[in-house]
Amino acid sequence: MTLNKIYVDEIIKRALLEDINYCDVTTDYLIPETQQGSGRLVSKADGIVCGAEAAARVFRILDDSIEYEILKNDGESVQKGDVIMTLKGSTRTLLKGERTALNLIQHMSGIATAANKYARIVEGTNATIADTRKTLPGLRALQKYAVMTGGAKNHRYNLSDAAMLKDNHIDAAGGITAAITQLRKKIGHMTKIEVETRNLEELKEALDAKADIIMLDNMSPELMKQAVEITSGRAVLEASGGITDETLRAVAESGVDIISVGALTHSVKAFDISMYIK
Amino acid sequence: MTLNKIYVDEIIKRALLEDINYCDVTTDYLIPETQQGSGRLVSKADGIVCGAEAAARVFRILDDSIEYEILKNDGESVQKGDVIMTLKGSTRTLLKGERTALNLIQHMSGIATAANKYARIVEGTNATIADTRKTLPGLRALQKYAVMTGGAKNHRYNLSDAAMLKDNHIDAAGGITAAITQLRKKIGHMTKIEVETRNLEELKEALDAKADIIMLDNMSPELMKQAVEITSGRAVLEASGGITDETLRAVAESGVDIISVGALTHSVKAFDISMYIK
Amino acid sequence: MTLNKIYVDEIIKRALLEDINYCDVTTDYLIPETQQGSGRLVSKADGIVCGAEAAARVFRILDDSIEYEILKNDGESVQKGDVIMTLKGSTRTLLKGERTALNLIQHMSGIATAANKYARIVEGTNATIADTRKTLPGLRALQKYAVMTGGAKNHRYNLSDAAMLKDNHIDAAGGITAAITQLRKKIGHMTKIEVETRNLEELKEALDAKADIIMLDNMSPELMKQAVEITSGRAVLEASGGITDETLRAVAESGVDIISVGALTHSVKAFDISMYIK
Amino acid sequence: MTLNKIYVDEIIKRALLEDINYCDVTTDYLIPETQQGSGRLVSKADGIVCGAEAAARVFRILDDSIEYEILKNDGESVQKGDVIMTLKGSTRTLLKGERTALNLIQHMSGIATAANKYARIVEGTNATIADTRKTLPGLRALQKYAVMTGGAKNHRYNLSDAAMLKDNHIDAAGGITAAITQLRKKIGHMTKIEVETRNLEELKEALDAKADIIMLDNMSPELMKQAVEITSGRAVLEASGGITDETLRAVAESGVDIISVGALTHSVKAFDISMYIK
Amino acid sequence: MTLNKIYVDEIIKRALLEDINYCDVTTDYLIPETQQGSGRLVSKADGIVCGAEAAARVFRILDDSIEYEILKNDGESVQKGDVIMTLKGSTRTLLKGERTALNLIQHMSGIATAANKYARIVEGTNATIADTRKTLPGLRALQKYAVMTGGAKNHRYNLSDAAMLKDNHIDAAGGITAAITQLRKKIGHMTKIEVETRNLEELKEALDAKADIIMLDNMSPELMKQAVEITSGRAVLEASGGITDETLRAVAESGVDIISVGALTHSVKAFDISMYIK
Amino acid sequence: MTLNKIYVDEIIKRALLEDINYCDVTTDYLIPETQQGSGRLVSKADGIVCGAEAAARVFRILDDSIEYEILKNDGESVQKGDVIMTLKGSTRTLLKGERTALNLIQHMSGIATAANKYARIVEGTNATIADTRKTLPGLRALQKYAVMTGGAKNHRYNLSDAAMLKDNHIDAAGGITAAITQLRKKIGHMTKIEVETRNLEELKEALDAKADIIMLDNMSPELMKQAVEITSGRAVLEASGGITDETLRAVAESGVDIISVGALTHSVKAFDISMYIK
Repeated sequence: MTLNKIYVDEIIKRALLEDINYCDVTTDYLIPETQQGSGRLVSKADGIVCGAEAAARVFRILDDSIEYEILKNDGESVQKGDVIMTLKGSTRTLLKGERTALNLIQHMSGIATAANKYARIVEGTNATIADTRKTLPGLRALQKYAVMTGGAKNHRYNLSDAAMLKDNHIDAAGGITAAITQLRKKIGHMTKIEVETRNLEELKEALDAKADIIMLDNMSPELMKQAVEITSGRAVLEASGGITDETLRAVAESGVDIISVGALTHSVKAFDISMYIK
Repeated sequence: MTLNKIYVDEIIKRALLEDINYCDVTTDYLIPETQQGSGRLVSKADGIVCGAEAAARVFRILDDSIEYEILKNDGESVQKGDVIMTLKGSTRTLLKGERTALNLIQHMSGIATAANKYARIVEGTNATIADTRKTLPGLRALQKYAVMTGGAKNHRYNLSDAAMLKDNHIDAAGGITAAITQLRKKIGHMTKIEVETRNLEELKEALDAKADIIMLDNMSPELMKQAVEITSGRAVLEASGGITDETLRAVAESGVDIISVGALTHSVKAFDISMYIK
Repeated sequence: MTLNKIYVDEIIKRALLEDINYCDVTTDYLIPETQQGSGRLVSKADGIVCGAEAAARVFRILDDSIEYEILKNDGESVQKGDVIMTLKGSTRTLLKGERTALNLIQHMSGIATAANKYARIVEGTNATIADTRKTLPGLRALQKYAVMTGGAKNHRYNLSDAAMLKDNHIDAAGGITAAITQLRKKIGHMTKIEVETRNLEELKEALDAKADIIMLDNMSPELMKQAVEITSGRAVLEASGGITDETLRAVAESGVDIISVGALTHSVKAFDISMYIK
Repeated sequence: MTLNKIYVDEIIKRALLEDINYCDVTTDYLIPETQQGSGRLVSKADGIVCGAEAAARVFRILDDSIEYEILKNDGESVQKGDVIMTLKGSTRTLLKGERTALNLIQHMSGIATAANKYARIVEGTNATIADTRKTLPGLRALQKYAVMTGGAKNHRYNLSDAAMLKDNHIDAAGGITAAITQLRKKIGHMTKIEVETRNLEELKEALDAKADIIMLDNMSPELMKQAVEITSGRAVLEASGGITDETLRAVAESGVDIISVGALTHSVKAFDISMYIK
Repeated sequence: MTLNKIYVDEIIKRALLEDINYCDVTTDYLIPETQQGSGRLVSKADGIVCGAEAAARVFRILDDSIEYEILKNDGESVQKGDVIMTLKGSTRTLLKGERTALNLIQHMSGIATAANKYARIVEGTNATIADTRKTLPGLRALQKYAVMTGGAKNHRYNLSDAAMLKDNHIDAAGGITAAITQLRKKIGHMTKIEVETRNLEELKEALDAKADIIMLDNMSPELMKQAVEITSGRAVLEASGGITDETLRAVAESGVDIISVGALTHSVKAFDISMYIK
Repeated sequence: MTLNKIYVDEIIKRALLEDINYCDVTTDYLIPETQQGSGRLVSKADGIVCGAEAAARVFRILDDSIEYEILKNDGESVQKGDVIMTLKGSTRTLLKGERTALNLIQHMSGIATAANKYARIVEGTNATIADTRKTLPGLRALQKYAVMTGGAKNHRYNLSDAAMLKDNHIDAAGGITAAITQLRKKIGHMTKIEVETRNLEELKEALDAKADIIMLDNMSPELMKQAVEITSGRAVLEASGGITDETLRAVAESGVDIISVGALTHSVKAFDISMYIK
């Protein structure tokens, strides 16, 4: 998958303006303009790389004479000590871009590594891990890409590309059946409809109303197992809410199709990567 | 402290475009345009609120007829169950703004809560917690504000407002003394100079060269104690690198002035807040 | 449906900068700053109004003291002579915003009127009219909204919210079945898959591979009728390509579910609306 | 004429963000990243090409390694089947840029083709076809360029680069003579003044007041002929309002200098061009 | 004249982001959030006010509860000690907006005051003072508005709204006559043509070719007088180049119509205005 | 020092959009698209060059095939007649970029030349010249860079990177000592504190409160001399207010460390540079 370059460039430019402002007083006053150097991005932990191309782009946007070689592409696993990328060019540029490049690749690799960890926990079950809209402002594109790179899947991107019925929508329409019926008349044929349910009665109503996806909201693994049996393939079942590392496998073994995890994008632990410049 | 509104508005608009795109198919097709409702943001954990004004602004940017009351201002501590804010107005707007508002306030409150936790750990010592430039792209202003709101301090904002000498700068100049001398000639009188040091020899050279701040990079608490004695108030000492929850108190008790913690902004755990809409 | 205000405001600001630049030499030099006036937007033809709220917003962005009343809301039908909106306030503002407001509402009403005309042609059949991605640069949100306002439906918004397999994708994957299988493994559970087919063999393969939607590309109404029979409800069928006013009803009577019409957005005839200012 | 690249790039980036969002799920998941291909843009009708350079730029902005050759430059006439441009490079890029490139070139060629048709209708008369400010929001630069490419002329670009006196201006100033006198005192020496007139009395007053251009608003060809005689070269005469394909030649033969046609830009029929990718 | 608000707002937001960044450490940490205050903008010199509305807008953009009263409108003359504007509201906002507001109004009033001075020097002659395109990047709208406010006139705004033939254009076309003839065929009827001339031969050729405006480039007042006689009203004559305070009156008395002065916008002396906050 | 390219590019794009709009009617209609030419930027006065790289960038942003050679780098002194830069490429591009490039380099060189003049006046004393926040909207980065290039120093960039206590802050806190104490508790360790003082009592209080920098506001050189003696190196002393060319040397000889001059950036005289195109 190739992230839309226009998106990435905008994020990088914003980050560079915020990190450099008009100059780097230390570097501009001490490093000669013509000094050439080389840099290495090295992994300080085990995980999945994501954002290597974006990190390289940071330096190229500052200075298009920078050369680089990516040794570990997005989605590849790395171990502590692995060199992810090498760079060559103006030492000033390497020093100025360092922090922004690291901030990007550490965040994206942190997400990919977590997504990968969750995906491996549910391996062998029917379940797939998915992200949510619980993303950080302005970074959704990068975060969704990182989730996917790590081996999990993307839920809807925004409020216009899929429908999700919550209490307020159901109440306003007069019930699950009424809501789905009303919605089908209006939304496009490319748009799926998901319904949030809190118990088996709601599940059954949603199934009868032919919801495409049914969310099992904060149900126990046991209740989910019953939901899977009742559903019997008539809709995609998504488990959501209060799922932790410890309960994840049990949830997955209930037979649900999708387990969505907000923490993948709202509580990211940066993946440790260092840059060495000579 | 009042965050620059222009900054916040830009971030919110970007987030709303990314979360709503052109419409909210579920809400726009099911909730009548004239339906009025109310909302409450409720804390689901104990911590420090940050971003309440920004969250309210999300709704106001979508619809300037939304009314709100903030019950817990930025910097106040909350307990699970506390109502942070109430809102009144178009149900459509409340539903459309919900996710973006929560994404903002949960992230900012997560930072403030962590900053507060760290600040309390070092209470009673000479040390103050500070953030770093390890922030997320495009969110530095919000993150630095949240750090401050939680009771920690802001390190330099960017590469142009303070100098920080690393190996590359020192090598290019021909040593710590040469680097500081060269820099003093050029940088403005409002700009401080910090030097990274890895041992007591470098510390002594930096002291003699009259660095304003000296970073003790990855030193043990014992070595830091010696550094404090040698320094004897002639420079601000900043501990940095590899400091964890467990080692933080020991580092603080070494007598250093500042302990900078990248995790405050690069590895944020969202603070759990829910929105209830009726 | 309420168009995302942030989207609309950006388009309006761009249009006003392009139409006014720094001032309106005629109006600024001849109309006294304090002169108050009133305006009426009047329909010069029969059709469906769309963009009334956007047109009013043009004046409010220039000058928030402008008052207006919308008499014909988006989606309502109007006849020649009907007053769509009245405005009151600074004559300078009314004159400066006139062209931009008309350009918006005429374009959007033109789309809504055409969408409505097509929708009425297929009334009584199984078919629904849909738009395409053949939109004008930067105006997709407005155009899709207008299509919907006129009574037709929105196809996918962009390349990331639904999959559409064309020759190149199918060839690269090694056939329709292989392509769908490969894609299902990777794309999210909220994303539908459509396949372009040119004959009944391809249709059958797509059905067996469980495509969500199957496009019948440039088929005759007779062939489509066979396709409908073969499909028998197992997938949504979309007719596309070379459909004109004359052939539309015949295509609809073939039993297909969706007829997508690029001309709705790529070849728009402005709907005639005048503004009278006193 | 070379369109301002900065303008074009902004429009293209906006269009690509709106069409691709963060990725192309079909292409990114099915087409290998390294696959190379070629493309051809082929005319499906007879007309005037416009936007070839802009269409090529779409692909180059996504990926600067794309190579292309333009066989039919902006302003050249093409016949059904003519190859306008060939492209070589990453198949992913060709597929991702296709729709945006076609949307641009089809719209611009549609305008150029219509402008050319009108220009040919008035050939041999004194009249020249001109556009208006009835353009689509954010696209004026492209549309005005296309009009010119097709062989017609550009009217004023915006409200600040030329003056146009309408009823409201004339009433506020106390008559045509007063308005022109008042305006001459204030506007710059590079700015022309046009006056709208509805009858020969107004025409005569405008002539006496030395208007540079006089618009004959909704006059019959016969009345225009009288206007031409009365004017006798003392001002440029512009016919405007209610002119159709059928009446255009008669209007032109009345002897007026300029015939402005809003439909050139407000009611554009896309010119049919296909892209074939291998 | 009312400057396009969208233009002004963009400039102000840019300036406030650059001046405040995320907060005002002095004000935010020392002035209580609820403290209310008042401010006065007072002229420290004699001249023409320009930018009062823009300066007020600075505070309103930061905080829409600020109230203000403008006592001296744009274009009015002030004397040292005159109060231009009073403001009331949050002391924090008054302190944060002060510098940006002053930077704007001092620059614009500086231009208006200089324009007024030049205009008074040529009073009683046929000549009018005009500006040029020698403006500061991103500030042309404000600068041209200030020139006009001071009593001088605006030359063309940009390269697309009027034609100016220089050596390179004339050489490429094969002479003044050829250049004008070629240009007339292509440019719109609302666009004027100016020709640069360096001697009376070129002037005569330009007159015969019916240039609308003829620039007398770096000619002596005596030569200009001859040019005026030769021209005898057949074209507008613009004096340009090397004109100083001392030579201006003599140039004006030569009988030329326009004297364009680059210094009006490229070498602006700020007009001294102070803000007092209580 | 290398100015942040992203900053410069944004300013240049804004300037080119404002100067060219969609085309250059003169150049586009008269200069053949393929015509190649060369250009020279020549100094018309003696001074310091600044903005050569930015001027070259103007042409490269319009057209990346333009080649150039900079003969006088930013910071070098030039004499009347010196060639600063040569350019080669499309004549159309050279003509279109000329005005924007000159506007940039003339403004920046004007600042550098003035900064250099002031710096030379104080040569041999303890004093250094510094700029202020009295900059033009949107141009601070360029202006601060030019000041530094000319040999003076940069004061704080914005309200968040250093503290400056004025009357309002001191009054709100209850005196200089209280204000500094309160501020030290909150602001970061990288942020300096400056205090404005109007007499020796205030100076003494600020010294005792350990202000980093003390501004001597509108004091006479004699009073400043006393201030220097009292201070005896305990703080940096900054002279500010009402300093002219004539009084500057006397102020510098008082022994102060910094003399800040608002005119450096708020009242810039463009440095005369011409461009010759063949």
